[in-house]
Amino acid sequence: MDLMDKIESLAKRRGFVYPGSEIYGGLANSWDYGPLGVELKRNIANEWWRFFVTSRADIVGIEPAVIMNPKVWEASGHLAEFIDPLIECKKCHGRFREDEIKIPRSARDARPSNKIEDFDKDGECPNCGAHEFAKSRQFNLLFKTYLGPLEDSSAQVYLRGELAQAMFVDFKNIINTTRVRVPFGIAAVGRVFRNEITPGNFIFRTREFDLMEFEYFVREAEWEKYFEYWLSEMHRWTQHLGIDKKKLHDTDVPKDGLAHYSTRTVDIEYDFPFGRKELYGLAYRTDFDLKNHMKKSGEDLHYTDPRTKEKFTPHVVEPTFGLDRSVLVALLEAYTEEKVSDETRVVMKFPYWVTPVKVGVFPLLSNNEDLIKEAHGIFKNISGHFVAQYDDSGAIGRRYRRHDEIGTPICITIDHDTLKDKTVTLRERDSMKQIRVKSEKLLEVLSKIFSGEEFLLLGKEVK
Amino acid sequence: MDLMDKIESLAKRRGFVYPGSEIYGGLANSWDYGPLGVELKRNIANEWWRFFVTSRADIVGIEPAVIMNPKVWEASGHLAEFIDPLIECKKCHGRFREDEIKIPRSARDARPSNKIEDFDKDGECPNCGAHEFAKSRQFNLLFKTYLGPLEDSSAQVYLRGELAQAMFVDFKNIINTTRVRVPFGIAAVGRVFRNEITPGNFIFRTREFDLMEFEYFVREAEWEKYFEYWLSEMHRWTQHLGIDKKKLHDTDVPKDGLAHYSTRTVDIEYDFPFGRKELYGLAYRTDFDLKNHMKKSGEDLHYTDPRTKEKFTPHVVEPTFGLDRSVLVALLEAYTEEKVSDETRVVMKFPYWVTPVKVGVFPLLSNNEDLIKEAHGIFKNISGHFVAQYDDSGAIGRRYRRHDEIGTPICITIDHDTLKDKTVTLRERDSMKQIRVKSEKLLEVLSKIFSGEEFLLLGKEVK
Repeated sequence: MDLMDKIESLAKRRGFVYPGSEIYGGLANSWDYGPLGVELKRNIANEWWRFFVTSRADIVGIEPAVIMNPKVWEASGHLAEFIDPLIECKKCHGRFREDEIKIPRSARDARPSNKIEDFDKDGECPNCGAHEFAKSRQFNLLFKTYLGPLEDSSAQVYLRGELAQAMFVDFKNIINTTRVRVPFGIAAVGRVFRNEITPGNFIFRTREFDLMEFEYFVREAEWEKYFEYWLSEMHRWTQHLGIDKKKLHDTDVPKDGLAHYSTRTVDIEYDFPFGRKELYGLAYRTDFDLKNHMKKSGEDLHYTDPRTKEKFTPHVVEPTFGLDRSVLVALLEAYTEEKVSDETRVVMKFPYWVTPVKVGVFPLLSNNEDLIKEAHGIFKNISGHFVAQYDDSGAIGRRYRRHDEIGTPICITIDHDTLKDKTVTLRERDSMKQIRVKSEKLLEVLSKIFSGEEFLLLGKEVK
Repeated sequence: MDLMDKIESLAKRRGFVYPGSEIYGGLANSWDYGPLGVELKRNIANEWWRFFVTSRADIVGIEPAVIMNPKVWEASGHLAEFIDPLIECKKCHGRFREDEIKIPRSARDARPSNKIEDFDKDGECPNCGAHEFAKSRQFNLLFKTYLGPLEDSSAQVYLRGELAQAMFVDFKNIINTTRVRVPFGIAAVGRVFRNEITPGNFIFRTREFDLMEFEYFVREAEWEKYFEYWLSEMHRWTQHLGIDKKKLHDTDVPKDGLAHYSTRTVDIEYDFPFGRKELYGLAYRTDFDLKNHMKKSGEDLHYTDPRTKEKFTPHVVEPTFGLDRSVLVALLEAYTEEKVSDETRVVMKFPYWVTPVKVGVFPLLSNNEDLIKEAHGIFKNISGHFVAQYDDSGAIGRRYRRHDEIGTPICITIDHDTLKDKTVTLRERDSMKQIRVKSEKLLEVLSKIFSGEEFLLLGKEVK
């Protein structure tokens, strides 16, 4: 079983991620985050917000509407450019992306361009095997819907295909109502929708997904400086998330692969089990968007320096982080199999701040009223501060394994000694070491462990 | 100026809420949360999650996809029942909700039913004033779109009109992969979409909005007990949010006003400036949804008690909280005008945990390098822990007023004494009292203030 299968299976079995609409046979690679997945995802999204937004003086956040005035997508170029060229098989009438058409390696190597006439000669329909194709069709990736009761073109609107446009559309309001000064950023986290022809690879490519990104507005002359700065900050984040540096690669996107708005883009790629693919992206968008919105809306979106009175259109450096891909990488990086005695222990070694459940609370026995009462009290005391799980079923060893598999860093066992001396056993996930702690000190000790203060407590570094 | 106008104006002027797509003339009552609004909204959503999900052992969360298999909406009854009857004016062909047609009060009183034939006699088109109408049309509130490249009925899907269906669709996975036992709840927070004909009243009614809700699964015999329990818990939340009890009213929805899935619903209504309207809702959904999904999907969605082996379909009590309405009420409740000397002070008296910016950091002078350096250091120290804002422009008094208006509870001023004795001035929003605190103790003092521990510090209760 390869790593992706193991992750997908564990994700479903333990409630990280379920197939969407599963009782109805699913829906085209859609997924629901389960009880553990939602905590994991929230931890990453909230920490990203703290890391890049609230802990900085130069970045402010917004939360824009999903459905915007359709003129936004005309101005941004998405209606004209945000397309996947499709090829239709003349026999079965299936429609495919160019890269889905099977072409023998020899023919592909001989023919670097992907012109439609070449497909007839060498291509093979992945559905029926035929060799005749209709001309490439332009298929727009924006989902359309209608606002109000009339379904005509005047009511047609789109689900946002990226977050960025909202930051440009709200640029003037931000300038006028906050105290930001260039260089500064506008950030958002939220759902975007892309009508991808071929979603796949678990939560890697789906038709709805969450992005975390910001537009950083700079003077044109300084874009390269900030491009380098943000690339390094993005890597600081990858390290905070606990990603193995050796699996990360900065790749300059070649000119002919750039999005229509960008003149330089670096993809931070990750060695996924299914290949080296984009995890995060850093794009230099120039002043493309603000200029187009000025033209289309007639509004003045210049920035005036409050000191020098210099008036200019800021250029934009844009770091983009896939939230679902962050979750996927967190799962992949955490997955560990260890030999313990004769059996294999599966441990999800998430960094402590990432892990969905921070503390497991176990009464030693499930049929002893005193132990259960004590354990309930401790659970109640802890759970207002840390995400905790109460678990009273099966032998303690099995409960440890169950919590290793979901990455719970600290398990607390309430046993007969607890009733006498008011101490509990505290067991750490990675080292499997145990110490005794006074019940009344528990919150304080946990606070220190999870803030990283008491990282030597258990004989190893607490991330 | 009435309170709603004041709130909407302050919200825009200070960056709580901007009109959506404003540079393009807006879009049908859509709104973007600005830098302060997004923090406010996040605070409420995150605290709700802690209050109802992570601090409890009996509720787990999920984060489901927005687009589900369309069979979900057939089974749930939304395709057949989630409708607004529309009336078309025969002259101008405008379409209107029944309650939009102007009818003289005398005629309305004489005719309690809203039959279409009656509109011809008494009704008046709100657009052109004509008196002839076409028969009521059924207009479904679900937004439609198409998945994949083909725009035909087989590809038609819907944006979710409520969160609840995902909790029913994922019910079996939750039962199988977590340790929950009836009674238990499944919670979610997220965006829903309803193609309302008449959105309005600022962020009160919009076509996309966020809900926070859970389905609580119980034995049929116990639904009334849990209905009462959750009603009281919902009120505990309203008090936590700081809502004036006198403005809240529990209203039993009359039988003919119930949603198609409910046999009892209590609306928690609030006295908005524009009338008494639903803020939150508590619905008893019976076993309507699970039964229909069983029938439609063929899956077994019974619950089996692990002890007694009793097998049954749980009944559902559903508390629903509008997140955007919570934000609106937080703004309305916080708004305060006070006479201070000769001027009017506008203060947003948010509970401390709700308020978007916790701490303002001011160097006394904006042209003194030493003060600025010290203030930057303090800002940096604080901002990793509490949302802080650095502000060096204008007289201190003006900066206090500016922060009163956005509800910042604590302002810290760095002055010449700070450079000598390493103390700063700490000023509280509501009492306007000031004390001196050692810089090195600042984080500790702030932690105590915001955890409510040191609530007497400033001579008044810190919420």
